Amino acid sequence: MVKDMTKGSFTIPGEEGHEKLTLDLAEKWGADCIRDSDGTQLPESITNSGYDIYSTICIIRDHNEWAKQNPDKLQQTFLMTQPVVAVDNTLTIDLMAGFFAEQFRINDSGESVAYWQVFDRTSNEEIKDWSYADGKVTINNAELWHKYTVNFLAYRIWEEISMYNHTTNNWDKEHLMQIDPRYPETQKYMLEWLKSWCETHPATTVVRFTSMFYNFVWIWGSDERNRHLFSDWASYDFTVSPRALQEFEKKYGYALTSEDFINKGNLHAGHMPIGRKNLEWGQFINDFVVDFGKQLVDLVHSYNKKAYVFYDDSWVGVEPWFPTFKNFGFDGLIKCVFNGFECRLCAGVDAVDTHEIRLHPYLFPVGLGGAPTFMEGGNPTRDAQGYWKNVRRALLREKIDRIGLGGYLSLTIPFPDFQDYIEKIADEFRMIKEFHNEGKPYVLKPRIAVLHFWGKMRSWTCSGHYHEHPEVDLININESLSGMPFDVEFICFDELKSRGLDDFDVVINAGAAGSAWSGGESWNDSEVVEKLTKWVYDGGVFIGINEPTAVDGNDTYFKMAHVLGVDEDRGEKICHGRYTFEETGCSCVTDRELFEVKKGIYLTDADTKVVMAKDGIPCVTMHPFGKGKGIYMSSFVTSDKNTRTLMNIILNATGEGCDQNYITDNLFCECAYYPNSKKLVVINNSGAEQTTTVTIESGVKKEFTLDAYDIQIADI
Amino acid sequence: MVKDMTKGSFTIPGEEGHEKLTLDLAEKWGADCIRDSDGTQLPESITNSGYDIYSTICIIRDHNEWAKQNPDKLQQTFLMTQPVVAVDNTLTIDLMAGFFAEQFRINDSGESVAYWQVFDRTSNEEIKDWSYADGKVTINNAELWHKYTVNFLAYRIWEEISMYNHTTNNWDKEHLMQIDPRYPETQKYMLEWLKSWCETHPATTVVRFTSMFYNFVWIWGSDERNRHLFSDWASYDFTVSPRALQEFEKKYGYALTSEDFINKGNLHAGHMPIGRKNLEWGQFINDFVVDFGKQLVDLVHSYNKKAYVFYDDSWVGVEPWFPTFKNFGFDGLIKCVFNGFECRLCAGVDAVDTHEIRLHPYLFPVGLGGAPTFMEGGNPTRDAQGYWKNVRRALLREKIDRIGLGGYLSLTIPFPDFQDYIEKIADEFRMIKEFHNEGKPYVLKPRIAVLHFWGKMRSWTCSGHYHEHPEVDLININESLSGMPFDVEFICFDELKSRGLDDFDVVINAGAAGSAWSGGESWNDSEVVEKLTKWVYDGGVFIGINEPTAVDGNDTYFKMAHVLGVDEDRGEKICHGRYTFEETGCSCVTDRELFEVKKGIYLTDADTKVVMAKDGIPCVTMHPFGKGKGIYMSSFVTSDKNTRTLMNIILNATGEGCDQNYITDNLFCECAYYPNSKKLVVINNSGAEQTTTVTIESGVKKEFTLDAYDIQIADI
Repeated sequence: MVKDMTKGSFTIPGEEGHEKLTLDLAEKWGADCIRDSDGTQLPESITNSGYDIYSTICIIRDHNEWAKQNPDKLQQTFLMTQPVVAVDNTLTIDLMAGFFAEQFRINDSGESVAYWQVFDRTSNEEIKDWSYADGKVTINNAELWHKYTVNFLAYRIWEEISMYNHTTNNWDKEHLMQIDPRYPETQKYMLEWLKSWCETHPATTVVRFTSMFYNFVWIWGSDERNRHLFSDWASYDFTVSPRALQEFEKKYGYALTSEDFINKGNLHAGHMPIGRKNLEWGQFINDFVVDFGKQLVDLVHSYNKKAYVFYDDSWVGVEPWFPTFKNFGFDGLIKCVFNGFECRLCAGVDAVDTHEIRLHPYLFPVGLGGAPTFMEGGNPTRDAQGYWKNVRRALLREKIDRIGLGGYLSLTIPFPDFQDYIEKIADEFRMIKEFHNEGKPYVLKPRIAVLHFWGKMRSWTCSGHYHEHPEVDLININESLSGMPFDVEFICFDELKSRGLDDFDVVINAGAAGSAWSGGESWNDSEVVEKLTKWVYDGGVFIGINEPTAVDGNDTYFKMAHVLGVDEDRGEKICHGRYTFEETGCSCVTDRELFEVKKGIYLTDADTKVVMAKDGIPCVTMHPFGKGKGIYMSSFVTSDKNTRTLMNIILNATGEGCDQNYITDNLFCECAYYPNSKKLVVINNSGAEQTTTVTIESGVKKEFTLDAYDIQIADI
Repeated sequence: MVKDMTKGSFTIPGEEGHEKLTLDLAEKWGADCIRDSDGTQLPESITNSGYDIYSTICIIRDHNEWAKQNPDKLQQTFLMTQPVVAVDNTLTIDLMAGFFAEQFRINDSGESVAYWQVFDRTSNEEIKDWSYADGKVTINNAELWHKYTVNFLAYRIWEEISMYNHTTNNWDKEHLMQIDPRYPETQKYMLEWLKSWCETHPATTVVRFTSMFYNFVWIWGSDERNRHLFSDWASYDFTVSPRALQEFEKKYGYALTSEDFINKGNLHAGHMPIGRKNLEWGQFINDFVVDFGKQLVDLVHSYNKKAYVFYDDSWVGVEPWFPTFKNFGFDGLIKCVFNGFECRLCAGVDAVDTHEIRLHPYLFPVGLGGAPTFMEGGNPTRDAQGYWKNVRRALLREKIDRIGLGGYLSLTIPFPDFQDYIEKIADEFRMIKEFHNEGKPYVLKPRIAVLHFWGKMRSWTCSGHYHEHPEVDLININESLSGMPFDVEFICFDELKSRGLDDFDVVINAGAAGSAWSGGESWNDSEVVEKLTKWVYDGGVFIGINEPTAVDGNDTYFKMAHVLGVDEDRGEKICHGRYTFEETGCSCVTDRELFEVKKGIYLTDADTKVVMAKDGIPCVTMHPFGKGKGIYMSSFVTSDKNTRTLMNIILNATGEGCDQNYITDNLFCECAYYPNSKKLVVINNSGAEQTTTVTIESGVKKEFTLDAYDIQIADI
């Protein structure tokens, strides 16, 4: 039986008032599922049309009635005031100064104030001689000319996504609040509400949870010049409450303080390593989110509906790569994707049957950064091509089960070329999926481990979307790797120690000093250094990018300098000599412009070969160590050229060589070979026609000429 | 009586075989003193010609006969081997691998080996299970895959300046050794030698010590690709010996280890702060150098000769800005100068009667970096103009008593324009000196303190010449300040605390994080922060450059962020928002190109005004704090434009304004007004004709047009 590649595996939004358009596009695009969107309801003509119906719910939002009756059960966060210098011995600090008054309300209950702390940030001492009244803390006997801050607890009185949509799209609706399931009363309310919801939505086949309970951390300021005081997609600061803190203390046998969260005002961005206490807090929250989340999922299942989770917004504590994720019992995981690494994040999660990606652009008038999309001046087809180019190469590597769109279908009416393009990529997607169903694609021999603080738990992600932190080296590495024909795993330092590195041929460590991606203090663990050093000596390839393995307190800043053959001087070696060198050049390094010079990099060994240098400073180096190699790159920005650079470096350094079967000889093209179905898929990632040759096992070279962004399939 | 401005205050080298030329040029240049040079002897026709005769001696060198008989009294140093990774449990390290065998010989005597240390640099632990034989240390029970280093003690068997001259000028003479006056036998020998020398040199009126005993640290490597493993003009590593270490222990009550010097292989560059132990070692050495140095000076005086010290080469422990310097009893201090700050370093030393500067270029065939000078392809007049331009503006500010030249006069024969130019600048110098004799020049109101780790002890210097470390911000600041009409002092953190800042209107802190110039850990002293904060609040201006006040462990990286209104993020605030800003611009900031962007700089306060930004990152900012201001500059490179920028910033920030008497309105010109002699000296620092106006007290504006590099004097 030949499978119909034009139907299925596609979720589209339905739109009230555009029922015919909905069904027409469902037919054109081969959709098998129609969804509602935030704030919309599907009409019966759609819910009864035979499609799967999938409904979004955000369990902590849209309960303002109950929230108003239970203002002490809103979600909370610790905040730190801006430092104030004492010009008098009595100092009064207005807690809310600088914060967005519509987002926060001070929780000045007794059990809250018990957690507040006042710090002398000049001497780094906690101060006990203070009092609170009317939104202000007064410090007595302040040391003149020292600066002081107050850590306090505030309710979040406007759910952040609602706040963002209001502000961005000029909504004028009631501010939604978010209720905290930490309280038995809230749990009871939520379970009853969900039960009632299931009963009143019989047509719904899939309940899509807009994540679970706790939003990523997004602290707004009062000054329009600095509206977003803090925003991180992976930190746990929005999960606190006196009750949660008390329960933690009971369970773990020690109390956390406000300062454990505030961390001198730095908070804990997902880009930075955290200590044992904060790791345990994360576990504690994860346990809770999974436990109560499972009750909600079970309830959904009891109504014979499936439960999917959308991994965005209130995703804190969900952590799909945690082993506990399977305990939720979700049927599907949905990830909105701009990039290839986000597909791999979704595709690699074992614990669900269905992996769905929400494509961009959303069917909204404006897109990223307020740029026009489905309105005058927009070019949604071009946007879709750009995102599809990123996503498709990752889809070739690992199976995604479904695609979807969100927003308003009617916006596509003036853009028939967009409607046609979606039809085309939906068919491409279904074909690729079918090849995966026949068996995994061919991979080259080098097996790659990306080593960072979070390891498997944060596989393929650097807390957030690419455009938020394009300066993070690892997000660029992840993006390049996401479409390469290698097996890739993400490991943490504990896994390196317990499992060893025998399963890998290449280890990558990429990031700024002190970051979670580089590893920070983890490098002062001798066992890590021993294992990695031995592994390279025995033949492994260690690739370090930017400030790999950097940590204070040693003879070198890069703890693996003996393997890398380079180190970074931050001034302490200003009077030390430097090896002179000649650039050896290399066919691997193609995109010289994109390499950023890292000041202070110098060779620690005469044997280190400088492949590429800029301003007299080594940018790409290779250093033999035993049977293995240390490779240093001063930076990494993803691009067609640099992706190929990285692949070639991996192939050359591992001794495999670049003359491989089933890779293209044109860096703007990539391919995947599916041995079981004997299909070779060749893609053109560029906006221009490209010709490329692929060598197949028999040694035969096959030539392909592809239109811009096109795809071709060959039977092998 | 009108003083003859064409005669005196000038020391020139005499040259055997060119007696007539020597006397002719002495006459032409108005010299009053003739000197010998390293390796030359003056003939009697010169020594008896009525000029002062000044002879150079290097007391620790040129004693090879005695050195060979006393090989255990050569000077020494600790060295650290390059790290070696243990691939076996027994590890053998060749101590001299990588070091220049002609410079070092291992001191493997028992009292030396007692100071050796072996370190596991992976775990940072000292290892005791090792043995030494035949130039190699064998480590037993090494931890596999850890890296190890050996700290050992070596004799220096080739005096470094002799080594440099040999290598650079292809000398083929016997290698000179340096003997260590730490031993009573050496002291006895030196005193006897000097006595004999004085007796056999009756014509000599001035004995010029080529510094004292201990060379700046200059460790050479065996690999021509990395010949200078370490070179620093201010560190004390070349002063060690078992005897000195034992005496230190007796005097201070605790022992120093080799690691106290090796410092994980970093050693202790003068650019970095040091701890108490190393400070005490410096004191210990200084006490010794002064004590024994005084014996030598007394001996010279007993022969009715004067004793000058040349502050170069073996200058360690001399420290002319130390209060102990006066105890030597020197009559003169001589400094070779490329730049203005070096003149100020010399001129500001109270403890001697005579301050002499040795001008560049030296009368050698090649100059800096091997460039041709007095040979084909050279242009010594142009070189002299360049150096004189740097030096003259500093001479205007503070009195220097004498100038001098070194090298071979005969080399000037093919360059008559050079001979004429020296005549001209000698006359300029004598005239400027005469104005100083009448009284100090007029200064503008702001009084400036440069705050760094070394303070007064290292006034006007950043350990070495400009061209060695042009990347150091403070050396650029020093150079700009050296010719500005301000009173300037250099203070350390202890002086800030004990003396306060009442004597100053501006405090400058400039340098990379952790450097001696920025201050490093000194900023974690609350008293420093309190005093500086209060002083700014009361009206002071704090100028921070590059990474001012940066130190780890606080809520901000710049400890004075509350005053500066900016801070630097090194990744821990990657998820924090940033104030947006508009560049306000300012007439002060003229040389945009020369400002280097410091990544991670962000505003901590909405009130911080961004005067200049590049790549969206603030480069120059002003922040009001109380009645005072915090000013931040991302970098500082000295140039005509930036010198004026700094002056204008100082005048504007202090509220004085740029409309001042006795300053030029053309940034390529500067001037000095001597109220006592009622002379206004205007100089042109540029290679082109310039016109400038100077307002004098009466409000009258005087206009000057000056040829390239010219000088004009006006009676006021």
